[in-house]
Amino acid sequence: MAARFTVTYFVAADDAAEAKMRALDIALEQTVEIPRNAVPTGYVEDEILGRLEALEEDPAGRRGHLATISYSEDDVGGDFPQFLNIVFGNSSIKPGLRVEAISPSSGIIEMCPGPRHGIAGLRARAGIDAGPLVMSAIKPAGLSTAALARLAHDFALGGMHYVKDDHGLVNQRTAPFDERLKACIEAVGEASAKSGRNTSFVPNVTGPATAVIERAKQAEEAGAGAVMIAPALTGYDAVRTLAADRSFTLPIVSHPAFSGANVISSGAGFAHGVFFGTLHRLMGADAVIYPNFGGRFGFTRDECLSIANACSVELSGLKAIAVAPGGGMTLNRVPEMREVYGNDVMYLVGGALLQEPNLVDACQRLVASIHE
Amino acid sequence: MAARFTVTYFVAADDAAEAKMRALDIALEQTVEIPRNAVPTGYVEDEILGRLEALEEDPAGRRGHLATISYSEDDVGGDFPQFLNIVFGNSSIKPGLRVEAISPSSGIIEMCPGPRHGIAGLRARAGIDAGPLVMSAIKPAGLSTAALARLAHDFALGGMHYVKDDHGLVNQRTAPFDERLKACIEAVGEASAKSGRNTSFVPNVTGPATAVIERAKQAEEAGAGAVMIAPALTGYDAVRTLAADRSFTLPIVSHPAFSGANVISSGAGFAHGVFFGTLHRLMGADAVIYPNFGGRFGFTRDECLSIANACSVELSGLKAIAVAPGGGMTLNRVPEMREVYGNDVMYLVGGALLQEPNLVDACQRLVASIHE
Repeated sequence: MAARFTVTYFVAADDAAEAKMRALDIALEQTVEIPRNAVPTGYVEDEILGRLEALEEDPAGRRGHLATISYSEDDVGGDFPQFLNIVFGNSSIKPGLRVEAISPSSGIIEMCPGPRHGIAGLRARAGIDAGPLVMSAIKPAGLSTAALARLAHDFALGGMHYVKDDHGLVNQRTAPFDERLKACIEAVGEASAKSGRNTSFVPNVTGPATAVIERAKQAEEAGAGAVMIAPALTGYDAVRTLAADRSFTLPIVSHPAFSGANVISSGAGFAHGVFFGTLHRLMGADAVIYPNFGGRFGFTRDECLSIANACSVELSGLKAIAVAPGGGMTLNRVPEMREVYGNDVMYLVGGALLQEPNLVDACQRLVASIHE
Repeated sequence: MAARFTVTYFVAADDAAEAKMRALDIALEQTVEIPRNAVPTGYVEDEILGRLEALEEDPAGRRGHLATISYSEDDVGGDFPQFLNIVFGNSSIKPGLRVEAISPSSGIIEMCPGPRHGIAGLRARAGIDAGPLVMSAIKPAGLSTAALARLAHDFALGGMHYVKDDHGLVNQRTAPFDERLKACIEAVGEASAKSGRNTSFVPNVTGPATAVIERAKQAEEAGAGAVMIAPALTGYDAVRTLAADRSFTLPIVSHPAFSGANVISSGAGFAHGVFFGTLHRLMGADAVIYPNFGGRFGFTRDECLSIANACSVELSGLKAIAVAPGGGMTLNRVPEMREVYGNDVMYLVGGALLQEPNLVDACQRLVASIHE
């Protein structure tokens, strides 16, 4: 018998009997996808069929139950998209179901070696021992390579540890990927030489199916300090493939573009911590961007805390990763964010700084306030 | 100035003023992602910044408005994931927004040549001129290659036009991809020789990031009749890349695994027809699987009709594609489905047939009832 991993689902239901029926449906749907009486006896029934391991009333008080179902590693076949498919493939389409927890087994961890660097590695690269990291984004799309590189320079000179592409920068003719990569690495390098810090440039390698891995490797060769990928756009396995690739060594920053529907409806998708925490650590992201509470998105403080917790809690020995809350971050939000996230955070600041008359100066004030 | 494509969003709002504010936020968020007063004048403001083209009270009577925003092709940069990012990247994370329509421009159609075959091509391959197509799936995972190939044979002999892998069949050791591909193509070929029909085998090529395109080409070389991909798992550009690749000629069947959250919440994601219709035709899928109304999933009859409509309505000259409603399809549902879908449908039948004592006979009865 192969090892089994478990997934805990919130199952909307009026009573325990309905919850049990729905949970047994999930166990069928996610594995054999045929009526129960058509499941072949022997290996398929004993090993492949999902197994309801536990069912309890929802401790959070929602109208429903938590159902924990175990699945066989044999059904994964060493294939991460198939792992996701077992976790929530067809059941993602059924109303009133939500993934609340995933407990990987040893074979899943073998397939998903996890973050290569984690938050500790991101600090080491930035040359700091402790405390929060600070990252900003060059934007908007439509600016020339030279203008974007100048922003990258100024952000770095202002004390940012990481300067990333906006996730909307791809290969537009105003700032093609190759040209922008080279110019921004140079600009950040120059600024680092002046400041004595080690600022990393983080290009966005989200792109066409055949380009993502290639651009990531190109970025490493060119001297980038990390890469950014939006996995809901590229497919989640792009991140895992790079994280598991021994010839690739850069940290990976994940961007949440196009992933919103997976978390924002309470009766669908994934609990925030599972999506932005557990899944991202399994994929091997070293930092995960998501919209902070109180900004222009709708995440609550508790949802953000659950993400931070899932990014650092013990998970089969996988490294803790950096939460990178963004979306409307300004100087005056630092105290509140410090209270919530403590030191294990990568502040993502962008748009607001671009309103400042002197960008370098504004960055320095912000970085100082974060580190004071 | 480059051509502009438009996206229409449902924007939840209490009144027109709030709707306008939210719509202008979308225009910023999806393009420049900086505060309005920081948008550089000239090219960025005039070309890249999203433009609110129309705002009207929701004709469907929901509490909100429909906002139509135009975006520049320049911002897409010939990159399909970036197109999706502009359509709904960050805004996917904001509550109360839903994509209700997409009108591609000429440059988008150049990037997305669309379905190579469409429903007409799927019929031609099956050797029929008109009427519904019928597809079934071999399953469950955990069966041996020989057992799966036998099912493929019997489905083909029973008159199915297409016999596909279950979407949970990947490269498990019980039926590895290479072995299963070969055995099932052979089995379906044998059955076709007996029946005089031209049944196609459709392997699932959903897999790791580096395997999808490769397996699709391997499938073509081995004699498969189409391939199946679950784009929410692989990344949407895998489908477009294959559809646009001149060295690849097979039809592509799309599977909805892991995509549920994109459609099932009314205040998030995409309208059903936009996701399963418009986007799939842009990607270049030739048939799109989704859960039928009245089965074990929650889609309504109207939602399914909207998908069927979006799969066939005029869309920049792209071919009409086959809707493949599945999920609990049985013999006694044929009349009702015929009423809704007419002849332009690919019936997807699977699990229920596996309960029958004589599979070939059960298939023949079903196929006869569909074509009577």
